[in-house]
Amino acid sequence: MAYKSPVRDLTFILNDVLEVERYANHLEGADLSRDLIDQVLEEGGKFADEVIAPINRTGDQEGCKIDGDVVTTPKGWKEAYHQMVEAGWTSLAFDPKYGGQGLPAIVSMAVGQFTAGASAAFSMYPGLTAGAFHGIEASASDEIKDKYLPKMATGEWTGTMNLTEPQCGTDLGMVRTKAVPNGDGSYSITGQKIWISAGEHDFADNIIHTVLARVEGAVPGIKGLSLFVVPKFLVNEDGSIGERNGVQCAGLEHKMGIHGNATCVMAYEGAKGWLIGEEGRGMNNMFVVMNEARLGTGLQGLAIGDAAYQAAVEFANDRLQGRALTGPKNPEGPADPIMVHPDVRRMLLEAKAFVEGGRAFILWTALQADLQKSSDEATAAKAQDYMGLITPVLKAYLTDKGFHAASLAMQVHGGSGYTEHFPASQYLRDARITMIYEGTNGIQALDLVGRKLPAKGGRAIMSWFADIGAFVSENGGNETTQPFVDGLADAKKKLQEATMWLMQNGMQNPDNAGAASTDYLNIFGLTGLAYLWAQMAVTAQKAVDGGSTDPFYSAKLQTGRYFVERILPDAEAHLKKLKTGADVLMQMPAEAF
Amino acid sequence: MAYKSPVRDLTFILNDVLEVERYANHLEGADLSRDLIDQVLEEGGKFADEVIAPINRTGDQEGCKIDGDVVTTPKGWKEAYHQMVEAGWTSLAFDPKYGGQGLPAIVSMAVGQFTAGASAAFSMYPGLTAGAFHGIEASASDEIKDKYLPKMATGEWTGTMNLTEPQCGTDLGMVRTKAVPNGDGSYSITGQKIWISAGEHDFADNIIHTVLARVEGAVPGIKGLSLFVVPKFLVNEDGSIGERNGVQCAGLEHKMGIHGNATCVMAYEGAKGWLIGEEGRGMNNMFVVMNEARLGTGLQGLAIGDAAYQAAVEFANDRLQGRALTGPKNPEGPADPIMVHPDVRRMLLEAKAFVEGGRAFILWTALQADLQKSSDEATAAKAQDYMGLITPVLKAYLTDKGFHAASLAMQVHGGSGYTEHFPASQYLRDARITMIYEGTNGIQALDLVGRKLPAKGGRAIMSWFADIGAFVSENGGNETTQPFVDGLADAKKKLQEATMWLMQNGMQNPDNAGAASTDYLNIFGLTGLAYLWAQMAVTAQKAVDGGSTDPFYSAKLQTGRYFVERILPDAEAHLKKLKTGADVLMQMPAEAF
Repeated sequence: MAYKSPVRDLTFILNDVLEVERYANHLEGADLSRDLIDQVLEEGGKFADEVIAPINRTGDQEGCKIDGDVVTTPKGWKEAYHQMVEAGWTSLAFDPKYGGQGLPAIVSMAVGQFTAGASAAFSMYPGLTAGAFHGIEASASDEIKDKYLPKMATGEWTGTMNLTEPQCGTDLGMVRTKAVPNGDGSYSITGQKIWISAGEHDFADNIIHTVLARVEGAVPGIKGLSLFVVPKFLVNEDGSIGERNGVQCAGLEHKMGIHGNATCVMAYEGAKGWLIGEEGRGMNNMFVVMNEARLGTGLQGLAIGDAAYQAAVEFANDRLQGRALTGPKNPEGPADPIMVHPDVRRMLLEAKAFVEGGRAFILWTALQADLQKSSDEATAAKAQDYMGLITPVLKAYLTDKGFHAASLAMQVHGGSGYTEHFPASQYLRDARITMIYEGTNGIQALDLVGRKLPAKGGRAIMSWFADIGAFVSENGGNETTQPFVDGLADAKKKLQEATMWLMQNGMQNPDNAGAASTDYLNIFGLTGLAYLWAQMAVTAQKAVDGGSTDPFYSAKLQTGRYFVERILPDAEAHLKKLKTGADVLMQMPAEAF
Repeated sequence: MAYKSPVRDLTFILNDVLEVERYANHLEGADLSRDLIDQVLEEGGKFADEVIAPINRTGDQEGCKIDGDVVTTPKGWKEAYHQMVEAGWTSLAFDPKYGGQGLPAIVSMAVGQFTAGASAAFSMYPGLTAGAFHGIEASASDEIKDKYLPKMATGEWTGTMNLTEPQCGTDLGMVRTKAVPNGDGSYSITGQKIWISAGEHDFADNIIHTVLARVEGAVPGIKGLSLFVVPKFLVNEDGSIGERNGVQCAGLEHKMGIHGNATCVMAYEGAKGWLIGEEGRGMNNMFVVMNEARLGTGLQGLAIGDAAYQAAVEFANDRLQGRALTGPKNPEGPADPIMVHPDVRRMLLEAKAFVEGGRAFILWTALQADLQKSSDEATAAKAQDYMGLITPVLKAYLTDKGFHAASLAMQVHGGSGYTEHFPASQYLRDARITMIYEGTNGIQALDLVGRKLPAKGGRAIMSWFADIGAFVSENGGNETTQPFVDGLADAKKKLQEATMWLMQNGMQNPDNAGAASTDYLNIFGLTGLAYLWAQMAVTAQKAVDGGSTDPFYSAKLQTGRYFVERILPDAEAHLKKLKTGADVLMQMPAEAF
């Protein structure tokens, strides 16, 4: 039942499918050689498997505890975190200027998947630190950066993001937390924040909160918000830790899952904070971080789905029950392993085809995150367009389907899966939050159709269609991979049709866009997976044609075939639903629900 | 956040759609008048809302406790059960010969939905008693029936079903529990049973276990199994309670949900038991009960979905967040209720259209359960065919979609839904087991295509197609209801196509049947809902045409329209997947997963 990081699959995607080595010249000569990637992923996987995975279940069972405002994480978590910091796994992606290792996003995302698969709740501590780090890095003054970032880069200090309040989650324009200037450049922050992941814990000497608040007298709504850095302990001039700041954990949320993550109610009572960037630009500054956090959440959904799938495969091979429909496969035993049953295999392949396709799609996107920084302007602009367009798709699609994979994994377990003696329940409970936090999946869909799609005259989606079109015309004609290319072409056609429908109907009535948004996002997700599955199939087939007998490649082609034949047909149903428009949703009076 | 039993919707289905009064002559003149149905449902709903619903959440939080072999249910549960017994709600469906009220299944199923919606975990105590009662009633000697059934009918004693053992759930042929004849007509039962719902508790003076065991020396496999009645306390000749029998609760399962249900490990150590029916006929005797339990589980999935939906509607009307895409709808308030958003309405209507359609479908099936006993042979035979065919469909489809509805309900809640302060988490956790117990949904699908469909030369499915065909040709031509009739005709066509594919491909290779089974079951479920939605639409439209301005009817038509436009399109995707056959599932080597 031990989780195993999918190292082989990730090196295949990075080295063979995406051939990331080709992009080194775009990334200031970053080392993207096979050797380096193989080595980092091998070691990262080993660390996740050996140090993090073993504390996942006990963390779920034990949870976090609060006494006064002191939060204790589950047994062994602090030690595992310290090992992680010492081995340098928390600093991979940070700028070397602050002591980070400066590795490309594509490498740190790959390793991040191992961590999240080993323990989603545990991965939130370094995850939130990265969010806070990048928020400060993007907009704060050099003084603030120099004060906080080096210790956050090493992981000695951790970070948080404080947005939500009881009266507002999605609609942050209603934030009430107040900031009053102290006259010395600092502000006095007062208010309550809820659902603050890693808000308080016993991992680190200091916790650096980034907090959305309204400066006294600022306009109501989004435009009156500013972003602040509020350390748990004030930091002296010499970098040493000073007095305790006026921020406390006022309680822990009682949640369905991710019990090892300390989800805190945070009380700010005249806490000292310093502005990150300009007054009134809080949301803009926060958005930098939120996009990163959304991608991280998509990765989490995928990784939990993978871990759940792995547990289900093990169960399906171990559990003896019934006989194969075509006659005993384990005649010496009392029954056959349930792996012999077509419907058990259907559930496993449904999860596997999603996990492998989604993994390639999110790594492809991580490559765009790196290419945003290319010195070649056209490359950078296109990568930036893609990041905007695809981030909401990945967040929602990978978490919806990651949860579905976890549910399939439980189903394979039968009754055992519903008991807490097996890991299936934790995966299902942990996966469910990924559909909600960092913007519910409905909000992602609305962001996609309302904001990202029409941005810059639809430039991003036009690149997307052009790139897919080029791939299709370049890769036809091979007998084995033709179904993948055809499937992709068909998915693209449906996405184009859906886009056209949105242009014609969403402008005149925005409710049509809202009504179509989730189906649109699903067609987009399916097209993205079809694109990556086609690329993987072509790569695998080349290896086979080149004489490789490695079963990895034939399994890859078979799994991809499942995707094309048994997942892709959903696109048509989504298109049909999308075209029904808003009337059927909006005509019902609220009181008739 | 209070659960409200859907009384109005059920009286509509029973009185207006199914017009059950017409069938009184088939049921030995049972009273199926509007007056009686209205009254029973009104009172049953009131009892569920006022007595059972309030203890549901506390039951989840508190759970059952074990001390030695004494199991204590959550606070207030025992008292609620006693009130239920006193008010006669546990005895509705039982034969008056044993003190039951002899009401038709269609009435007791309607009331059962209220109980399950109010508290799924609580409903299992009377639910299992009914299972054990009917198992004894169907096959035991008069002596046994007279000894146990009267006190079970009143609810003074409860019952259980003991099938599963650690090494076998689905594959009961591997049962090891032994029965050794004592020479006095009784047997000595020894073995361990697991996942025994209501196996031990503090509701009743005695618990009557029905137990699957193998008589010493009997053949291995299914055919060597016999069914026994094993009371917790032996019952004296005069009906009084005698000495403690050798059966004990050895532990409680730690489960993801239904915490109020005592799910027990039961240890039998030389417990005295008596044969129910003949030796070696245990599985046949158990099947009578299992079919009933499957229908009950489908009802539970549906009812939890309904309760979750209700909580989501309340949240969507209360929670102020953001503004409508078409401009403020609550301009005086700080934000609009999230009910204004198309995607929130999509989630709610997805749940509502399923719940109302599924409810009608299971009540239609309950009517078949009653008609099985018709004195008219043709009516009885057809009803019996339908029960066989449709039971696995309802069990799997209503629980899959009930869980989906609970997940949508959580999504409407956003972050709040993931915390245990709102009921969404409990509904999601409780709903998940219904897809697993009483035979996993994959087993239901296999039962459908492998056993029920080909039974008697496919007579049942041919009746189904004929009945739907007749409905379609009788009900065309009305502008408002035509889309319902067309949707039904199209679904039927797809089900026929899928049936044909199964006949052509499932015989030659049984793996094709297994590979197609879940998609086939889904097309069947969609067709069933389309059939009932069309009937409801025709009935509602008649009321509207008759001058009714009751908003109930327009809401019914609008909800139905959602089903036709936004749920029914899934049938085509399922058909496409079904036709891909078994190869894509079976070619992958087990070690390549």
